[in-house]
Amino acid sequence: MSSELFSQPVVKEIPPKGDDLSAWYTAVCLRAELVSYSPVRGCVVLRPYGFGLWEHLQRELDARFKATGHENAYFPLLIPESLLMKEAQHVEGFAPEVAWVTQGGSEQLTERLAIRPTSEVIIGTMYAKWIESHRDLPILINQWCNVVRWEKATRPFLRTMEFLWQEGHTAHATAAQAREETLRILDVYQDFARNVAALEVYAGVKSESERFPGADETYSIEALMPDGKALQSATSHDLGQNFAKAYDITFADADRTIKHVHTTSWGMSWRMLGAVIMAHGDDRGLRLPPKLAPLEAVIVPIVKSGDERALARGAEVAELLKREGFRVRLDDRDQSPGWKYAEWEIRGVPLRIEIGPRDVDANSVTLVRRDKQKGEEGAKSSVAVEALAAAVREQLAAVQENLLAQSAAFLASHTFAVKEREEFFERCRNRAGMIDIAWCRRPECEAFVKAETAATTRNLRPLEGGEEKCVACGEPARTRAYFAQSY
Amino acid sequence: MSSELFSQPVVKEIPPKGDDLSAWYTAVCLRAELVSYSPVRGCVVLRPYGFGLWEHLQRELDARFKATGHENAYFPLLIPESLLMKEAQHVEGFAPEVAWVTQGGSEQLTERLAIRPTSEVIIGTMYAKWIESHRDLPILINQWCNVVRWEKATRPFLRTMEFLWQEGHTAHATAAQAREETLRILDVYQDFARNVAALEVYAGVKSESERFPGADETYSIEALMPDGKALQSATSHDLGQNFAKAYDITFADADRTIKHVHTTSWGMSWRMLGAVIMAHGDDRGLRLPPKLAPLEAVIVPIVKSGDERALARGAEVAELLKREGFRVRLDDRDQSPGWKYAEWEIRGVPLRIEIGPRDVDANSVTLVRRDKQKGEEGAKSSVAVEALAAAVREQLAAVQENLLAQSAAFLASHTFAVKEREEFFERCRNRAGMIDIAWCRRPECEAFVKAETAATTRNLRPLEGGEEKCVACGEPARTRAYFAQSY
Repeated sequence: MSSELFSQPVVKEIPPKGDDLSAWYTAVCLRAELVSYSPVRGCVVLRPYGFGLWEHLQRELDARFKATGHENAYFPLLIPESLLMKEAQHVEGFAPEVAWVTQGGSEQLTERLAIRPTSEVIIGTMYAKWIESHRDLPILINQWCNVVRWEKATRPFLRTMEFLWQEGHTAHATAAQAREETLRILDVYQDFARNVAALEVYAGVKSESERFPGADETYSIEALMPDGKALQSATSHDLGQNFAKAYDITFADADRTIKHVHTTSWGMSWRMLGAVIMAHGDDRGLRLPPKLAPLEAVIVPIVKSGDERALARGAEVAELLKREGFRVRLDDRDQSPGWKYAEWEIRGVPLRIEIGPRDVDANSVTLVRRDKQKGEEGAKSSVAVEALAAAVREQLAAVQENLLAQSAAFLASHTFAVKEREEFFERCRNRAGMIDIAWCRRPECEAFVKAETAATTRNLRPLEGGEEKCVACGEPARTRAYFAQSY
Repeated sequence: MSSELFSQPVVKEIPPKGDDLSAWYTAVCLRAELVSYSPVRGCVVLRPYGFGLWEHLQRELDARFKATGHENAYFPLLIPESLLMKEAQHVEGFAPEVAWVTQGGSEQLTERLAIRPTSEVIIGTMYAKWIESHRDLPILINQWCNVVRWEKATRPFLRTMEFLWQEGHTAHATAAQAREETLRILDVYQDFARNVAALEVYAGVKSESERFPGADETYSIEALMPDGKALQSATSHDLGQNFAKAYDITFADADRTIKHVHTTSWGMSWRMLGAVIMAHGDDRGLRLPPKLAPLEAVIVPIVKSGDERALARGAEVAELLKREGFRVRLDDRDQSPGWKYAEWEIRGVPLRIEIGPRDVDANSVTLVRRDKQKGEEGAKSSVAVEALAAAVREQLAAVQENLLAQSAAFLASHTFAVKEREEFFERCRNRAGMIDIAWCRRPECEAFVKAETAATTRNLRPLEGGEEKCVACGEPARTRAYFAQSY
């Protein structure tokens, strides 16, 4: 058994976010009971509060996949080694990260089985079996599952040996349709990031060296964390005919010729939750976007010198809001209101509803927004009970919007369009944020920048103007690129 | 690569259900595109139509768990061997079925990791860490996940190496509370079986030899299949303090003494879908209970000699029903109506909505129920378009009810309360159904019956009357028991 589980101290205090983001992050993840370390190296337990976040991510993303014509399915966890070995680049990319099953019961296996690090191989094999004619296309399938990649380090959500994700896998008759699908999903991811996770992101294509093993093109959305490091939050791959050729996925086209299909794959994992935690949180703990929050509001009755009317009113208010479809909890535990405020602030519940004796007298409650700082305008308001449901709806929308606005403002103020070579290298080294340059698109140039500064390209977009030089090396520029250090 | 994938013939015809249930079952599972065999021994792919069934099972069951106070979480897939070995009975029960990870990347592991066959061990270990005081109890957690048990045989849903399930794990301060939880979940399972899966089942306690390894008591629901074999569809275990002692899960009670908790665990897997398929299907294919069906209704327009009005009307009707929240599909493919009828009958869609030119003229549609045989009263009806949504709602409810009534009638007519020893052994041998006897509860007696007839106890309930003798062996009876051969 690893010592991690037992050496992990109980978190009493959350250190200031600005002092040490990494310490803050780990403390918040544990203290808010999102995760626990487990006795399995590299694996964490997603506790009920953390799983609540994941359930809302799933619900929102799944609805978007279904609205764009995708269906869910489930493919085997274990992949025979010989099957995994068919796509050369893919193998090279994933073999070092594979966990191998070599024994079943008391039996020694003649062929090792890989625990899926991703499922292109097994799904491609099935598509080869299922697809016969152009009438079978497109196939649009998504899978919600666990995958394992052998990792030494453990950072909740960001880097774990086992993680939860979704992986979409589609097959198309033409290259254009596959590219269209790849970009459609990139849009879905960007929409989810903005409108559910309240994160502004850059969407674009990855450079050659950052491409998925076996893909023709990889696209990504990239968020920016408070320490100036980028966090890749989802990827969408145009796999061209690489997997179709390796796994012999063919179809008879309308003209009766046999052709290889064009495939895509795309994924978002619980890493996205890491971005949400890190981007939005503050010194008091989590700040959750309402659309992802397991609880939208918590009700704290203030019972003073035996006056228990606030408790009864709290129960009424909880009932009223539940009937309206809100996710609320009445905190009727014995502890003091102040203690409860701090607890629910750590957990990032978007709204707090305080009910004291004076509120009871006035038939009102006090609404407190988690996204605002104490004393900030609009942080606190008094609302009549009969107007509460409408006020909660409105304020939840305001919290959601404000978190996105803050994220957008942060990204904008930490994106630097740079034209000077020295400034470029310095900003990369200093983790200034997203460093936006005209770039040559040469792997050697990217490798040099990485060696000098630890920054790499995050993603690329077309050049806007006329001829330019690469800011990093002086060769002709072929694209614009965001450079940043990254998670 | 297994030859299974490639030797599996494409299913053209479904053999009659009465001739060979096993051949019928496999053919229906493949032909209705619920599953595909995979290149991984013992593993199947759950295809989109099959996954649709699973999604509805999940939704219905998950809502029931949440309504009874449970939360979801996620625990690691891999369990270190030393941890697995702590509860002796549990180890003995599961060790022969474990798939072992022995290599990670290029690294040879110093300790083997088991792929979870079930998660008592890892969850108990976490509970030991989380629980300190009686105020932390009860803990009511459920997990939806995949598990692996090393199996040679493969029967879709019924026996596969990897399967999907939910496993609940709870911890309580007292034995009474743990028992109450165990029985509450048994009720949830029975309610789900009846009111969602439309299966009448017997709920009761398992005999000692059929108990979960490490449990004080195991309860189950048991359905009866058309061949007279029982199918255990879910189990709920009162684990007493066995796991609490093995994994040192203690709490400080109100009186400050340190006590071991009492735990439960309970699970339903995709096996339940196997029961649904086998119990309800007929010679034409699946008959799905509406509450589990991926599609509640399919619309087949009948286009005759260029009159395409039925197609436009079909689209209107589909739109209308979708707006009302029904899961419907318009089948506007090129094939003939007859071909489509057969296809959707194989897939068990509860209602078919036929629209021909005369229906268009009359502003009506023809509703056909999948649960009824052709020509049976009520199988077919004409409904005005403006009354369609109400009629669909009503007929779906009727299909759901009828399938349950048929299941209940089958179970009742194939349950035999037997008093004579010879009749008992004969009915057990002949797979007559559920053979209900007064029983001694002795493992030796059960082992003897099993050796003689292949039947075992399915579950038990209290004796009703006064003193009786065991029908199987003549010793004093202590319980009533259903005996049956089983899947």
